[in-house]
Amino acid sequence: MITSASNQQMKHVIQLNKKAKTRYEQRVFVVEGIKMCMEAPRKDIVAMYVSESFLQTAEHVQRIKDYSYEVVADNVFKTISDTQTPQGILALVKMPEYTLEDLLGAEEKQPHLLILESIQDPGNLGTMIRTGEGAGVTGILMNKTTVDVYHPKTIRATMGSLYRVPFYVTDSLKETLEELKGKGIFLYAAHLKGKQSYDRPDYKKPCGFLIGNEGNGLTEETAACADEYIRIPMEGKVESLNAAIAATLLMYEVNRQRR
Amino acid sequence: MITSASNQQMKHVIQLNKKAKTRYEQRVFVVEGIKMCMEAPRKDIVAMYVSESFLQTAEHVQRIKDYSYEVVADNVFKTISDTQTPQGILALVKMPEYTLEDLLGAEEKQPHLLILESIQDPGNLGTMIRTGEGAGVTGILMNKTTVDVYHPKTIRATMGSLYRVPFYVTDSLKETLEELKGKGIFLYAAHLKGKQSYDRPDYKKPCGFLIGNEGNGLTEETAACADEYIRIPMEGKVESLNAAIAATLLMYEVNRQRR
Repeated sequence: MITSASNQQMKHVIQLNKKAKTRYEQRVFVVEGIKMCMEAPRKDIVAMYVSESFLQTAEHVQRIKDYSYEVVADNVFKTISDTQTPQGILALVKMPEYTLEDLLGAEEKQPHLLILESIQDPGNLGTMIRTGEGAGVTGILMNKTTVDVYHPKTIRATMGSLYRVPFYVTDSLKETLEELKGKGIFLYAAHLKGKQSYDRPDYKKPCGFLIGNEGNGLTEETAACADEYIRIPMEGKVESLNAAIAATLLMYEVNRQRR
Repeated sequence: MITSASNQQMKHVIQLNKKAKTRYEQRVFVVEGIKMCMEAPRKDIVAMYVSESFLQTAEHVQRIKDYSYEVVADNVFKTISDTQTPQGILALVKMPEYTLEDLLGAEEKQPHLLILESIQDPGNLGTMIRTGEGAGVTGILMNKTTVDVYHPKTIRATMGSLYRVPFYVTDSLKETLEELKGKGIFLYAAHLKGKQSYDRPDYKKPCGFLIGNEGNGLTEETAACADEYIRIPMEGKVESLNAAIAATLLMYEVNRQRR
């Protein structure tokens, strides 16, 4: 049993949770909780740690009986956990490797992309990944200045969708968008200048939606890459919707049309 | 100028930010930032505080020239602010007083209610209020164990919609729901047992949507009050959507049908 917070493995977990740089150097990230640990692709799990009290529940022991794991003293587990009330189980998982091509979906499905520019809130990003899976997006494209997909709060908010939705981070959003347009993907941007309501276009064809930063929306350069501006009708004095909320309406409109 | 954090007024602001009990005893809450301060109903503003450096921008001085306010030293302002990087302006605002009747909307509009049971995340609640205004809800009903609508994080997430969407907190959700049904409001619950997809019913008639707690969903008792269960289709392995995301889809489906 690991009983000291200065144990090398514990220090490693803390580093991985805190620093995106360490995560990318080692291409490993940390997931917490039973759901996130049990849904991780088995072959990608590098290590698993459980707290002493976690093992006091028979159901827990049963769940992890086929895994190899190390036991950690409760007070030490608290120091490696990113949550206030840890469930007592975490795992180190290898990062998946997707190509841009993987975002376009299987052959029987038309591409349906969510494209994010500089989203800053990790919870927002995680919620968009979760909702994206529910709506049936084929992939998520992000620029470099979007918050890290492996941020502990992002991971938690995905509720496991992180393992199932292909995503890709691009160095040049503009170039990648041109590439997608070359592949016949029609790009929409929710924009104040949009004339058509978001539920008017035909989304049965390959499509992608540009969603901008929470505070500032899309940059002009990125908005200019869109084939069409669309508009989400808003009553009252509302000037804009939260980025994840806007993304939800667009992604689920595609789902509604394709159902 | 106020230069000490132990000033009585400063202590008062901190108490109001921290304690719901103090807010309700005095029926006053704290709003921060230019947008939230300038959109507050003028007659309800009890006090306004600005930081020294806030006044160094001519545009700021211009914006608040018709208000009476007290200047606060920057380091003291930091202690009364709930944000990491304060904008340098906050106000104490009187709570509005709504009745259940106020939630049913003006005569030309059919009631469209969002009904929340034990929502715990203040940001989620604020987002729902903001999205609710955008979608055109006539009011929001909450039970007692929903997080306080005047929590600083809720207020911030509403982006001003707090001032414009009528809301009501009930001691007995069950009794209030029966009352609403008596007024001809049809209640829908998004539920795993739902057979019809959420976009099938006719929402031009008076309607309300029951949304449950983030982790546990609706209690059985509350779900039993619904006239009909509906279902949000989900692809992949998604078991549920975030409460604010589910509420968005339902509220905006009403908006789509009524447009």
